[in-house]
Amino acid sequence: MSSNTFTGWVAHDATSPLEYTDFKPKPFTPTDIEVRISHCGICGTDLHTLRSGWYPTDYPCVVGHEIIGTVVRVGSGVATLASSPASRGIRVGDRVGIGAQNGLENYCPRITSTYNSRYSDKSKSYGGYGNFWRGPAHFAFKIPESLPSAEAAPLLCGGVTVYRPLKRYRAGPGKAVGIVGVGGLGHLGLLFAKALGCNRVVAISRTSSKRKDAVEGLGADLFIATEEDKKWAKTYTRTLDLIICTVDSPDLPLGQYLRLLKVGGTFVQVGAPEGPLPALPAWSLIQKEVQVTGSNIGSPDDIREMLELAAEKRVYPWIQKRPMSDVSAALADMDAGKARYRYVLENDMKLDEAKL
Amino acid sequence: MSSNTFTGWVAHDATSPLEYTDFKPKPFTPTDIEVRISHCGICGTDLHTLRSGWYPTDYPCVVGHEIIGTVVRVGSGVATLASSPASRGIRVGDRVGIGAQNGLENYCPRITSTYNSRYSDKSKSYGGYGNFWRGPAHFAFKIPESLPSAEAAPLLCGGVTVYRPLKRYRAGPGKAVGIVGVGGLGHLGLLFAKALGCNRVVAISRTSSKRKDAVEGLGADLFIATEEDKKWAKTYTRTLDLIICTVDSPDLPLGQYLRLLKVGGTFVQVGAPEGPLPALPAWSLIQKEVQVTGSNIGSPDDIREMLELAAEKRVYPWIQKRPMSDVSAALADMDAGKARYRYVLENDMKLDEAKL
Repeated sequence: MSSNTFTGWVAHDATSPLEYTDFKPKPFTPTDIEVRISHCGICGTDLHTLRSGWYPTDYPCVVGHEIIGTVVRVGSGVATLASSPASRGIRVGDRVGIGAQNGLENYCPRITSTYNSRYSDKSKSYGGYGNFWRGPAHFAFKIPESLPSAEAAPLLCGGVTVYRPLKRYRAGPGKAVGIVGVGGLGHLGLLFAKALGCNRVVAISRTSSKRKDAVEGLGADLFIATEEDKKWAKTYTRTLDLIICTVDSPDLPLGQYLRLLKVGGTFVQVGAPEGPLPALPAWSLIQKEVQVTGSNIGSPDDIREMLELAAEKRVYPWIQKRPMSDVSAALADMDAGKARYRYVLENDMKLDEAKL
Repeated sequence: MSSNTFTGWVAHDATSPLEYTDFKPKPFTPTDIEVRISHCGICGTDLHTLRSGWYPTDYPCVVGHEIIGTVVRVGSGVATLASSPASRGIRVGDRVGIGAQNGLENYCPRITSTYNSRYSDKSKSYGGYGNFWRGPAHFAFKIPESLPSAEAAPLLCGGVTVYRPLKRYRAGPGKAVGIVGVGGLGHLGLLFAKALGCNRVVAISRTSSKRKDAVEGLGADLFIATEEDKKWAKTYTRTLDLIICTVDSPDLPLGQYLRLLKVGGTFVQVGAPEGPLPALPAWSLIQKEVQVTGSNIGSPDDIREMLELAAEKRVYPWIQKRPMSDVSAALADMDAGKARYRYVLENDMKLDEAKL
């Protein structure tokens, strides 16, 4: 069991460096568990939140919502948890993962996020850039044995973020799917679209710098470089059933992406720019009955399904491990677009063991 | 049988008044029919096209695609028409209607519109502001006996434009539907949403000037005046399953409309502004998985279904009849928003008979 003081990389405001210091987790309740963190992926949301990019952050804040670790404490009510039969089996010593939400479900108006959020008792939620995590067992997921911890981390947020819309809009045999952006989310989109058996998976990026990775490594059947091929929207018009857009740039060529869709096709935005999306020509919606929608992480059931598929089909994110103590440099590299394709922070468990 | 010269209200450019003069219809082919026009509704598309509002119009042009009339000539191939068993029964003397498309189907990339378009032989298509219409029997629909001709006219384009998305997104018992705009399309949206048995139909308009019509006449259960009720988006947040937006103003409060949708709800744009739609905040899509889509008129099957429902449930558009010769004044009144809610041009059949 941990103490009531955790230690982690705390943001005090939008600009100062993170400080490795103590913070006070939520009060432990009978439906909570506590996890000793081994790994935490760096997600784009961490960057947006640290700099108050979407809206003002509730500092002090510890980010990180792609958490893997070992259960060290289980509340007395977990074994009979009404809300989640699947979480009742969580035991001390289990390896679990925690994603982006920690209270209620993914489209609930009163969602509690894993960090920068408040539980119903008003206590703050803190993320995985630290030594321990405490929160509801309902949102912890056992990690299948065959998935290594570091590779499993990005699945908890990035993986389910692309998996949910792929599944919901029936990506699979007979379908042609485009993934906009080859990055943290995008490379997972390509891997899951292949794992789901899509006939044709198309990687869409601004330049061809990631062509080799996408085609040779991630299984894309076609690569479109939108800034190099002037006629791309015309050449590939009406060829895709579904597009998942993982890019969060405010100047994405939305109208041209829609040209790639077949009649009745679906465009799903999962990247969230800090400004509005570009204005849409109404005709691009009306002429082909295409649907523009968004998707937000996934439900606990989505996460469990996605982990099973990842284990079965060996969907392993491409990651680079960074020591947790290297967090500031890793965040800067992530912001500069250097990740190929996800940084995963790693605690030195032996060192930490000595300190405990 | 008519001659090979028709007479109608011809537009020669974007600004001059329409001229009542002769024009040459497409060559008559075995799968065509010819119709003596009794009525033609005035649709917003007519205005956009006459002034080259969406894109340059191929003048000379005769608009009008809510056409009702009597069949006067049937091609030798109509009785065995491969493309449309439903059209095989068309006989001289039948009362039929013609809507907005005249070749191929509503989402075909090579759609031929009823006017301002070209058939595959490059001949021009001409609409219903005239004495006769000639075109494919495939796109002519028998009008159920109980529907009066003048009332039936607006159903052919306006009616099916709102009916298709209502049906496609399952408006009916148990559903709450919002209709943005109480005008030509919007009043039909309210009537069809009620006819389909929706639990709750909400009329959304800028001011309350049409409240009485909407609630007392058209059956709306609730009326929202967005410029008069400052808190409307908050008050009615997450209350609607489906919104059909019939307004073609470029400054519509799209983000606020989306707040009215429940999780997974659908917003369908059927009005087409001459500029782009307002920019969408990505979060409005991501946070609730709402779908933003468009819809374009309907298929021949949609039109037949809609006519049957209109006849059965007595869905009669609210119209004001105007003599065909009054077309210029009627167009000006339509543009000024004076229609309550659709003008229908009417030929003086006795006078015309004398001239034939």
